[in-house]
Amino acid sequence: MEVDIVQEEQIIKRVMDEVQKKMQGNDAPVPDLSTFKCGMTEFVGTAFGDTIGLVIANVDDVLRERLGIDPKFRSLGIIGSRTGAGPQIMAADEAVKASNTELLKFELPRDTKGHAGHGTLAIFGAEEVSDARRAVEITLNALSWTFGDIHMNDAGNFCELQYTARASYALNKFFCAPLGKAWGLIVGCPAGLGVVMADTAVKAANVEIVMHASPAYNTSHSNEFMIMITGDSGAVKQAVIAGRETALKLLPALGGIPKSLQTPYIR
Amino acid sequence: MEVDIVQEEQIIKRVMDEVQKKMQGNDAPVPDLSTFKCGMTEFVGTAFGDTIGLVIANVDDVLRERLGIDPKFRSLGIIGSRTGAGPQIMAADEAVKASNTELLKFELPRDTKGHAGHGTLAIFGAEEVSDARRAVEITLNALSWTFGDIHMNDAGNFCELQYTARASYALNKFFCAPLGKAWGLIVGCPAGLGVVMADTAVKAANVEIVMHASPAYNTSHSNEFMIMITGDSGAVKQAVIAGRETALKLLPALGGIPKSLQTPYIR
Amino acid sequence: MEVDIVQEEQIIKRVMDEVQKKMQGNDAPVPDLSTFKCGMTEFVGTAFGDTIGLVIANVDDVLRERLGIDPKFRSLGIIGSRTGAGPQIMAADEAVKASNTELLKFELPRDTKGHAGHGTLAIFGAEEVSDARRAVEITLNALSWTFGDIHMNDAGNFCELQYTARASYALNKFFCAPLGKAWGLIVGCPAGLGVVMADTAVKAANVEIVMHASPAYNTSHSNEFMIMITGDSGAVKQAVIAGRETALKLLPALGGIPKSLQTPYIR
Repeated sequence: MEVDIVQEEQIIKRVMDEVQKKMQGNDAPVPDLSTFKCGMTEFVGTAFGDTIGLVIANVDDVLRERLGIDPKFRSLGIIGSRTGAGPQIMAADEAVKASNTELLKFELPRDTKGHAGHGTLAIFGAEEVSDARRAVEITLNALSWTFGDIHMNDAGNFCELQYTARASYALNKFFCAPLGKAWGLIVGCPAGLGVVMADTAVKAANVEIVMHASPAYNTSHSNEFMIMITGDSGAVKQAVIAGRETALKLLPALGGIPKSLQTPYIR
Repeated sequence: MEVDIVQEEQIIKRVMDEVQKKMQGNDAPVPDLSTFKCGMTEFVGTAFGDTIGLVIANVDDVLRERLGIDPKFRSLGIIGSRTGAGPQIMAADEAVKASNTELLKFELPRDTKGHAGHGTLAIFGAEEVSDARRAVEITLNALSWTFGDIHMNDAGNFCELQYTARASYALNKFFCAPLGKAWGLIVGCPAGLGVVMADTAVKAANVEIVMHASPAYNTSHSNEFMIMITGDSGAVKQAVIAGRETALKLLPALGGIPKSLQTPYIR
Repeated sequence: MEVDIVQEEQIIKRVMDEVQKKMQGNDAPVPDLSTFKCGMTEFVGTAFGDTIGLVIANVDDVLRERLGIDPKFRSLGIIGSRTGAGPQIMAADEAVKASNTELLKFELPRDTKGHAGHGTLAIFGAEEVSDARRAVEITLNALSWTFGDIHMNDAGNFCELQYTARASYALNKFFCAPLGKAWGLIVGCPAGLGVVMADTAVKAANVEIVMHASPAYNTSHSNEFMIMITGDSGAVKQAVIAGRETALKLLPALGGIPKSLQTPYIR
């Protein structure tokens, strides 16, 4: 009995689709945490971006000193992600707004599972473990939408946009956002794409660049160029959207139509 | 009806071949740019190495200042690549020879789509947009041959060789090439391979090492060891070829026979 | 003739298993070195982790000076790996114990073939080529067990543990181990996992932290948090095992049950 050529092609296509998914690494099914039991009080949950949320109720003194953390922070909330840093700082900013914590560390490994960007190590400090846990929970929840304006094509090239009308302490401390003001992030990969996105964005509205990053500057050698902007909330949003439009027109030249990793939230 | 085991094996083999190609990332079909229309004057074209070429006619003043670019450069030519830095600096050197531009930035992200080397962010400055565009076009065209002496095996280990009889301003500025003299690049991955290639190369001919790089020095933590050499053109070529011969003998020990990514050009 | 849906599923499953293996990159068959002939006296052998072992009998003087190596070291032993740095420093420490060599360089590329850790460039110096070769052989051999306590899941998240009752010069020089004392390494990926492993470990036994590393500190931007510890040998072992237990409970939340890359050796 022979396998028809058409059937064979169908099989290959189906397998390649699965392979694609695996290689993207972003469609990995999130474990059902309602049923994940590891018997460790440190475990809080997981989220998009191969993210794990953890908590230490009473951090060891020696470890705390090594990390240069103030003794008043008895409890630590911890976020570890393979993929993404922009989504995580946005989520962490929501967390510090809504919990009695401080974002102590925000480090950017060069990861993303073979792609060209960053992962995240974030550490919140709190005086009470309930606060640390709350910050981690809020961060994990917010990661359900903060990947919405990462648009990636099959070859792993992407743009990332973030926007908030009112930046809080996390964005202020690590990405130069003025407290309580609108802040936006405009990123392109490969980095060359980001330069053109940035140029289009700042020409589209009256915004101020507060920080920028490139493969050799302010990144961990990711293949990204990015600007962080502030200004009136309408202007920041307009600039961010202009950067996105530029990227969505150019990305198809490099490996296919980009798709949002979640649902775009900047409108 | 059963699928014969042999047929099944054939299917699996065919799929694995496709997977291999995808994982190499280097065989991705280049879009047919004669038909790619994005309606953006910034788009110039694409090339090997997941490379995009872009141009900004009048760069925003604030962005220009952020990047520390002299105001006389109104126009920028931009190259963004996921894979390769040696091929891009060679191509950019051709571009500055043949256009009225200066290579302002050459940054090395740690990329190559999961492999062990670099990508590229290159920015040319020009007073006229036609010059910036010309530099980008020349660079994209030269990328059709500058990957020719990258020889990679199935496991992603490789050697890279570059050679020019007459280095120009791009190689001079970023890789210590004396202007107008012969210059060669000898790279091995993993880095240990590069050390032996370098030793063989400098013993093979009377050349001078003008620069070297390793995972912790002068790279963005790529898994490469490399030397840049100068001297008489015959000697430089001889040294480069000796380094290549060493690598082509050793690479099969680590993941199969290496293949050129294009067509070797150093003879 | 139709291919039964169940058969199609089986084919897809088998292919995905192969893809998985390829993507892990850790199951690449090691070439049979008893038969690998490249006709180069520099070649010593290969080992786990896409590792190649090489030797240079009389290193070129100019190259030696470039690398800042003392002229007394005429011969170099060289290790190049795509995957792993902890296993290699453990193996190199065995080598310096048992050979008349010094570990001159230990550099950490950001590699692991798309995963989130390091590779290795190690250079031994010796006065005699036989000593350099011996150091490389011992290192390659030790790599048959030093990956034993790296436990990785399907998504590439992992923990790594290393332990020695008596650290020698390589661990002393590069990872702050007191000479002749017990030393342990506790690593988690993503980095957030490593923070909790570290906390659990130092609480489990009376040990001293001699060094730590995170994505922005003492790593090449890998997605790892790690501590290096010393103390009584029983205490160090106990702490290392406590760190491992924590990781093995938490890792299944992120991409499946972790498996040892070889056979665990810390008991």
